[in-house]
Amino acid sequence: MSELESYALKLGTRARAAGLNLAATGVEARTAAIRALATNIRARSAELLAANAKDVEAATAANLATPMLKRLTLDSKKIEAMASAVDEIAAQPDPIGHVIQSHVRPDGLKVAKIRVPIGVVLFCYESRPNVTTDAAALCLRSGNAVILRGGKEAFHCNQVLGVALRDSLAASHVDPNAVQIVETVDRALLPILLKLDKLIDVVIPRGGESLIRAVVEHATMPVLKHFDGNCHIYVDRCPLPLAKVVDVIVNAKTSYAGAAVCNAVEHILVHRDVAPVMIKPICDALVSKGVEIRADAATKSLVPCANDAAESDWSAEYLAFIIGIKVVDSLDEAIAHINKYGSHHTDAILSTDAAAIDQFTKRVDSASIMVNASTRLADGGEFGLGAEIGISTDKLHARGPMGAFDLTTYKWVVTGDGHLRG
Amino acid sequence: MSELESYALKLGTRARAAGLNLAATGVEARTAAIRALATNIRARSAELLAANAKDVEAATAANLATPMLKRLTLDSKKIEAMASAVDEIAAQPDPIGHVIQSHVRPDGLKVAKIRVPIGVVLFCYESRPNVTTDAAALCLRSGNAVILRGGKEAFHCNQVLGVALRDSLAASHVDPNAVQIVETVDRALLPILLKLDKLIDVVIPRGGESLIRAVVEHATMPVLKHFDGNCHIYVDRCPLPLAKVVDVIVNAKTSYAGAAVCNAVEHILVHRDVAPVMIKPICDALVSKGVEIRADAATKSLVPCANDAAESDWSAEYLAFIIGIKVVDSLDEAIAHINKYGSHHTDAILSTDAAAIDQFTKRVDSASIMVNASTRLADGGEFGLGAEIGISTDKLHARGPMGAFDLTTYKWVVTGDGHLRG
Repeated sequence: MSELESYALKLGTRARAAGLNLAATGVEARTAAIRALATNIRARSAELLAANAKDVEAATAANLATPMLKRLTLDSKKIEAMASAVDEIAAQPDPIGHVIQSHVRPDGLKVAKIRVPIGVVLFCYESRPNVTTDAAALCLRSGNAVILRGGKEAFHCNQVLGVALRDSLAASHVDPNAVQIVETVDRALLPILLKLDKLIDVVIPRGGESLIRAVVEHATMPVLKHFDGNCHIYVDRCPLPLAKVVDVIVNAKTSYAGAAVCNAVEHILVHRDVAPVMIKPICDALVSKGVEIRADAATKSLVPCANDAAESDWSAEYLAFIIGIKVVDSLDEAIAHINKYGSHHTDAILSTDAAAIDQFTKRVDSASIMVNASTRLADGGEFGLGAEIGISTDKLHARGPMGAFDLTTYKWVVTGDGHLRG
Repeated sequence: MSELESYALKLGTRARAAGLNLAATGVEARTAAIRALATNIRARSAELLAANAKDVEAATAANLATPMLKRLTLDSKKIEAMASAVDEIAAQPDPIGHVIQSHVRPDGLKVAKIRVPIGVVLFCYESRPNVTTDAAALCLRSGNAVILRGGKEAFHCNQVLGVALRDSLAASHVDPNAVQIVETVDRALLPILLKLDKLIDVVIPRGGESLIRAVVEHATMPVLKHFDGNCHIYVDRCPLPLAKVVDVIVNAKTSYAGAAVCNAVEHILVHRDVAPVMIKPICDALVSKGVEIRADAATKSLVPCANDAAESDWSAEYLAFIIGIKVVDSLDEAIAHINKYGSHHTDAILSTDAAAIDQFTKRVDSASIMVNASTRLADGGEFGLGAEIGISTDKLHARGPMGAFDLTTYKWVVTGDGHLRG
């Protein structure tokens, strides 16, 4: 066994044992550990800034892209935000031990479905240091042991957070292996961890599509993930007032720097009856923000300066200041288009017609359906879940933004007095 | 494209379209279709018996094992039981459209989590005809389109059920492709279907371990399944009265013909303090039923006629009249043994000590924990779920016996009035 294999096995074995202990660790101890983490983040602020400076220096030398570098860089305000996000998770209701349902059978057998932790989570992510503390706190809130494998860019900072975490667990008498931060930047570790399906119950990758594809390819345990966000806004035959339509679309496309975010809108569908009124102002507003328009023939007839959309445009996630616009004949055509080309992440309808809204929300097969609201609002924080550990476009287990609740499962606890099968 | 590939694609494409329609089909129509199915099963009773006779004749000629042949064979009582199980599913509360949670954000944005169908289910199973109608009714109850791929042994009977199903859907104005019964016995179809992850959301195999392993190996979509059931009963230091202990263990081992069932107990762990009192009567009762005892040294010292257990015995699912018995020093040892050797299916504690019961239920990592009850009670019907589509030993999405509720997911429906991301 190589040194790396033996390290992976040690991480997994410790996590499994810690997970079984955590399942019996009360809410008070877990909450105390989360609160201690917030305190320790604040106490180690100077140390975190120094470690982060080392990370930023190395990342700059390695020519890390500017948006990534910006995400990586800490300041005292960001450190306070990290601590207060952890405080918020400490204040969330504890999901563990909740009786989901219970009933007594005619023969007196008590059947209860009880919420419990999943067990062991492997979380793989990239450069932002706050993701480390959010994930640690969410896993403690949900009673899971977690192995945190962050990006190499944040290595020094994550090691300081590791010390803060160990101190927090020890002070609260929680198993010291409840949260383990990977202590190597060797990329060969991840594929080895992904084979340990007897020790790790679920892997959650969060980051670019290449990270997620690599995880899906190698993982032998279930993966909770989303690949991409090809989000749509459909402007209905009975739309919102023009000014609101324009504001929502501009917000959905341009409110995140470079539009490089999964809940930015990528395509607009406009009902034929309102296209003559709506399309020109929508395009003018987008063009004035520097957005390139790729249009079908009907849209081009109204906005001649737009570029032609190719068939491949309709399934594209641009993650850039580019948008596709298409005129549709009906609500049905809009729904069919979204279900065919979309990524089941987030899709919106702008409409004042209750029947159209009802059909759209029922028949569009996506994790989040926005009615008269920007697709950018599809986010754990905006939904009021507190921090999110990721977004799922899978349909099983968890869908859309995932918080502490989504890191739980249940078991059946059935109590009798010598009951037998008849 | 081969004929079989084109048939698979037709099944998948039709199911996907039907699934999207079903998501917007109201509870009344789906309930009417389930009720019509019960009526049509009764109306086609003679036809079903004739088709079943053909199946039984072919299976007898092919030397199908006696227990399988028994499961395959219908009589008028079994047909009435099929119909009344379907009636019971029609009477179950409809899970679809239920608001799981909803709240209004400080800015007036309404955030709701709504229960919806998963979409398209592929269900693969073996010879019992009632499984066809249970699965069809559970999928209609949960708003899913389903492709039913039953065993070749039940082919003729399933084709008659297919006619009954089509009539039921047509009479209730439900999409005719909501339930499709595979119309070939070609085994090469299944691996092709298992590649259609864009059209099929989840596959549920139900049957022997070889079927389940084949599905897991080929499936590109999530699988809900259980492999095996290595179930334990732990007799605590403060046990139930001896007579109840013996009754529960004998019931858990011998109440199903041949013990060939996943929730039969395979291993007994006895606390050292009570071993001298408990082990001999337990073994005597089991031996008198024809059960072979495989024992550790401590047990053998009390029951010299027992055979020696090998290390491999502790992880064995015998599915036969064989049982392993071991003396443990503590509750902790019992829990560790079960988590190490068990299959996370169903494990029981027989105890009058509330603290021991609490630790056992929290720390044994299994789908069903039985307290002072037979492991054989781990069953959808016994739990009061109505018919079950299967049992899951996975931890994500569904755990233990799965009913209509477990065939659902949710979507977020977020409603504003031109709301933007700040």
